Amino acid sequence: MVRVGIVGYGYWGPNIARNFDRVEGCRVVRICDANPAARERARSSLPGVDTTAELQELVEARDIDAVAVITPVSTHFDLARRALENGKHVFVEKPFTANSDQALRLIEIAERKKLKIMVDHTFLFTGAVRKIKQLVEDGTLGQLYYYDSTRVNLGLFQHDVNVIWDLAPHDISIMNYVIGKKPEAVVATGGNHFCEQEYVAYVTVYFPNDVIAHVNVNWLSPVKVRTTLLGGEKKMVVWNDLDADEKVKVYDKGVEIGNSEGLYDLLVSYRSGDMWSPRLDQTEALRLETQQFVECVKNGVKPISDGWDGYMVVCMLEAADKSLKKKGGLVWM
Amino acid sequence: MVRVGIVGYGYWGPNIARNFDRVEGCRVVRICDANPAARERARSSLPGVDTTAELQELVEARDIDAVAVITPVSTHFDLARRALENGKHVFVEKPFTANSDQALRLIEIAERKKLKIMVDHTFLFTGAVRKIKQLVEDGTLGQLYYYDSTRVNLGLFQHDVNVIWDLAPHDISIMNYVIGKKPEAVVATGGNHFCEQEYVAYVTVYFPNDVIAHVNVNWLSPVKVRTTLLGGEKKMVVWNDLDADEKVKVYDKGVEIGNSEGLYDLLVSYRSGDMWSPRLDQTEALRLETQQFVECVKNGVKPISDGWDGYMVVCMLEAADKSLKKKGGLVWM
Amino acid sequence: MVRVGIVGYGYWGPNIARNFDRVEGCRVVRICDANPAARERARSSLPGVDTTAELQELVEARDIDAVAVITPVSTHFDLARRALENGKHVFVEKPFTANSDQALRLIEIAERKKLKIMVDHTFLFTGAVRKIKQLVEDGTLGQLYYYDSTRVNLGLFQHDVNVIWDLAPHDISIMNYVIGKKPEAVVATGGNHFCEQEYVAYVTVYFPNDVIAHVNVNWLSPVKVRTTLLGGEKKMVVWNDLDADEKVKVYDKGVEIGNSEGLYDLLVSYRSGDMWSPRLDQTEALRLETQQFVECVKNGVKPISDGWDGYMVVCMLEAADKSLKKKGGLVWM
Amino acid sequence: MVRVGIVGYGYWGPNIARNFDRVEGCRVVRICDANPAARERARSSLPGVDTTAELQELVEARDIDAVAVITPVSTHFDLARRALENGKHVFVEKPFTANSDQALRLIEIAERKKLKIMVDHTFLFTGAVRKIKQLVEDGTLGQLYYYDSTRVNLGLFQHDVNVIWDLAPHDISIMNYVIGKKPEAVVATGGNHFCEQEYVAYVTVYFPNDVIAHVNVNWLSPVKVRTTLLGGEKKMVVWNDLDADEKVKVYDKGVEIGNSEGLYDLLVSYRSGDMWSPRLDQTEALRLETQQFVECVKNGVKPISDGWDGYMVVCMLEAADKSLKKKGGLVWM
Repeated sequence: MVRVGIVGYGYWGPNIARNFDRVEGCRVVRICDANPAARERARSSLPGVDTTAELQELVEARDIDAVAVITPVSTHFDLARRALENGKHVFVEKPFTANSDQALRLIEIAERKKLKIMVDHTFLFTGAVRKIKQLVEDGTLGQLYYYDSTRVNLGLFQHDVNVIWDLAPHDISIMNYVIGKKPEAVVATGGNHFCEQEYVAYVTVYFPNDVIAHVNVNWLSPVKVRTTLLGGEKKMVVWNDLDADEKVKVYDKGVEIGNSEGLYDLLVSYRSGDMWSPRLDQTEALRLETQQFVECVKNGVKPISDGWDGYMVVCMLEAADKSLKKKGGLVWM
Repeated sequence: MVRVGIVGYGYWGPNIARNFDRVEGCRVVRICDANPAARERARSSLPGVDTTAELQELVEARDIDAVAVITPVSTHFDLARRALENGKHVFVEKPFTANSDQALRLIEIAERKKLKIMVDHTFLFTGAVRKIKQLVEDGTLGQLYYYDSTRVNLGLFQHDVNVIWDLAPHDISIMNYVIGKKPEAVVATGGNHFCEQEYVAYVTVYFPNDVIAHVNVNWLSPVKVRTTLLGGEKKMVVWNDLDADEKVKVYDKGVEIGNSEGLYDLLVSYRSGDMWSPRLDQTEALRLETQQFVECVKNGVKPISDGWDGYMVVCMLEAADKSLKKKGGLVWM
Repeated sequence: MVRVGIVGYGYWGPNIARNFDRVEGCRVVRICDANPAARERARSSLPGVDTTAELQELVEARDIDAVAVITPVSTHFDLARRALENGKHVFVEKPFTANSDQALRLIEIAERKKLKIMVDHTFLFTGAVRKIKQLVEDGTLGQLYYYDSTRVNLGLFQHDVNVIWDLAPHDISIMNYVIGKKPEAVVATGGNHFCEQEYVAYVTVYFPNDVIAHVNVNWLSPVKVRTTLLGGEKKMVVWNDLDADEKVKVYDKGVEIGNSEGLYDLLVSYRSGDMWSPRLDQTEALRLETQQFVECVKNGVKPISDGWDGYMVVCMLEAADKSLKKKGGLVWM
Repeated sequence: MVRVGIVGYGYWGPNIARNFDRVEGCRVVRICDANPAARERARSSLPGVDTTAELQELVEARDIDAVAVITPVSTHFDLARRALENGKHVFVEKPFTANSDQALRLIEIAERKKLKIMVDHTFLFTGAVRKIKQLVEDGTLGQLYYYDSTRVNLGLFQHDVNVIWDLAPHDISIMNYVIGKKPEAVVATGGNHFCEQEYVAYVTVYFPNDVIAHVNVNWLSPVKVRTTLLGGEKKMVVWNDLDADEKVKVYDKGVEIGNSEGLYDLLVSYRSGDMWSPRLDQTEALRLETQQFVECVKNGVKPISDGWDGYMVVCMLEAADKSLKKKGGLVWM
């Protein structure tokens, strides 16, 4: 039995708690939140759970094996550090930490104490991302050319982070997972017309083998868009996460470049075949993710999104910020 | 009567010829194309028109007032120069010239000889762009924040220009027209996985007053997208050029930033009101554009898209290429 | 304080209970369901509520003023009758009763005992239907011509009712409300290829003044559609209930019929103007509906959907069944 | 060489003429239209073609093998009859004739004189319909359950025919072709609010084996819809003719009805699998159709849409009119 304590029961915490609670072999034993109303809600949703306002009760408790940190990013490092030092495995909301040094220090503690870190990049467990990962791995798409994502809406402005730290961690964790290579460099541009933080940003990520990725994030779009295009040598994918029934479409379209026989002719031919929209597994992503964390704690396997994966995302966010300051200069990873 | 000669009767030339021919006070008198089949098509479409394989016949002809240059960009400078030096006004397919020096030299000749240059940025004459320009000018949108365009499809690879030179001139000419300010700097990133020319590119343009513009162009997208978002202080616009009936939608949506009273609180409130899709003028853009050229020649007024406008677009394309070579550095205009 | 008892806590009951419970001046005191698991769920969702397996406890209880009947239609009559006879107001899930005689008998009891009946046609309280009703009443649409609804999906086959009784009550209650006239006649056709009950049906309803309504309902559609067109003399409406942001669109389109001057010429001119999508009230429909029922009980006002409205819907369903048996004959109301 | 004469060069005639003219082994030799401007246009589009205002010149000409009748339906019978009696094969615009008697008489003449009749149901030659026909014939869909089409727009009111005669011949000819059985009965309802002819109509067609078809046609819709749903035992199809790239989508969705074991339980299970959008042949339908007519004339084979097919469509339109008059009664074929 893995006994989980949860720190933070605001917007996202209840979903995490509910899902951990229904994983077989796992039990949520204690929830910590400074807000009495949040603790009240926790008790009514998870009858029998302990609640506390004191972190100390959680990280020192003998009856807790793992701590889920579901609080603002500025607090992740301190909370996760204390949990790890008290011998608890940690599950940390994304982005992992407020900077890459913090991430490295947490990883170092966890490795020393042989504890698990999992970073909550929930999208990796959706039916859509798992299908796309499979299409890349089984060779259906052929060699990848590009990954191009748009994630815009009329969003909640945040005063402590810009739109990249708010929205891009989703895309960055997905592209790292799907492309499966270490990114090489980042370029970011953005606008902060009327506030200190950028509300719109464009991030290009260069991967090995000339694979290019791009993310368009915007808090000031009149319409909500969640669309990702993937171009491959053999097939191409459009993933529209707002389409209720056909989120992932695989197109048998592409170009074929032949040998250039003349002096400067490019021999290009176009393929335009069927489109196919595979049925996706409908299991709630958070259910699979919490199951995986519990299995990792029990059996010691590496989670899909461990501390190093979370660290890489934070490094890329830092690189994007650095590039933003230069209004678009190239920042090597 | 303005007598027009046309050089180049390939894909776009017939549209130009047909439209000039039906402008009142204008007549297409001669069409020049090296290809006999093209000349044959010209004669059957415009009964009574002269055709010739020799440019000299066109640029030296006494019975011609203006020459429309509808040929590949690498030939624009030489053809337009010869026409101008022979005292003809010129109408030049976009992009204006292959580099900015050429553009300056054509402008210099035209000014010296008091001739008109018009660059064929057809989109400026569409009902959609004219409506958007009006919404900006009459203050409906309030101060502009951003201009964000996606123009992707499975396109024709070209061996002599990259995707920016092929597709972005549309967006660049439109943003310059709508924003109405001189751009300050350009950043471009892109991918050229399997060929010399970039097939996908992302171009950020910084305008004065923190207005930011972005263009996403791609020859390797499985789906065709032609969507532009404009964010303003009071209203926002989505222009989907592929929507048959409701191309332009105006959203009464936005954020209002209040005075920050506390130490670090951002006072943001959201508006979410009606959406409105104005009826657009359905007149063919090319009809209005050719009419304007004829009026400019007759009455000496400045066209919406003159040599200087064409020059600015070419400068921005050059800046984008320069930035691309640096994999994304900022290039001041 | 209006004290409500609820019979039936399956799929829809919890929504009804939750909404009644948060209406000011109303309290859910008891929930009746034969299923112990349902009673368990009721107690955990509404802490402090009584539960019972015995209807008698509900309809005879002194501490209950009104009973909500949220059970299969075949049981409505008996449950509502017993509640009314015990002096309780009733709120009945749609369709009101299994036949029109039952509806009349319930109305008769309620009138005799001066009790209120409200039939749960929730759609009448949605922002979309309230906006459409307003557009009709304030003359924006001009005289109504037609109402045309498609409500199809891969649905749950039911063994006791056909697709008309399952899906069409929504459309029928809405058209009655929006058109505001007593329907004159019904024609229905349908298919029951592999089962006893029709899985697809087409219902035409003739209203006074040549207003025509049509409903297309289907349990065997591969895609879900919820679209209603309303044609008016001055404007037309498309209501797509699956559109997250722009459910109702008002088109300034139409025809204008002039005086026929010649012998057989029809003078028709077309208008094609702006489209406008009004912002809709986002309040949960069920919240407004339960509020209205409580107000009706307290102040004696007539609800939007009373027993007579529920009776009319049942009459039309009966007429549709009768027409179905004749494979499409006209059935006068 | 099949020598074709064309009667009627208005809206549709030029397309017919252009397509016949490019069929190998066929030549358009003469075009007849009473309007001098139409004849002028014909001569400039088809250099070398004869034009005439006199039908007699066409139907008696020795150098003509076949006549295409592309005129209003009220004139079809007389023109086709004269052509047939003069020994010409005929290609007749849809609907075939103004009533079924006329159709029978034309068929009788053609059979007696061993001439070919082809009725111009162009849709049967589109990539979409050919693909759907193939999916039915090769068993992909399994047994057909229903065919449900919506064909609405803000249309041109016509003073001599109602919306059924104007729009429904498309759907009727397609359903007859795809279902491949003789229809049994028709029910039609409709509205004619402000004019003599119905502007909106709903037509149900009963086919053998409980296959049901329905057509929704409307001249007064603010939006254009061209969508057909086909439900089959194994797969279902959505054909959206306005979708540029994915007109036909095949859904691996359905219900499976098991043996009813209890007294009244319906054992239904749902399948929800992949969706697949096959690439469609892009050849212009009219090109294939005119080719087929020429082959029929040359080799005597039966066209997909011969006189009997055209006759059946007219019979169904007549039945629909008869049912309309009864406001919806069943009319046996």
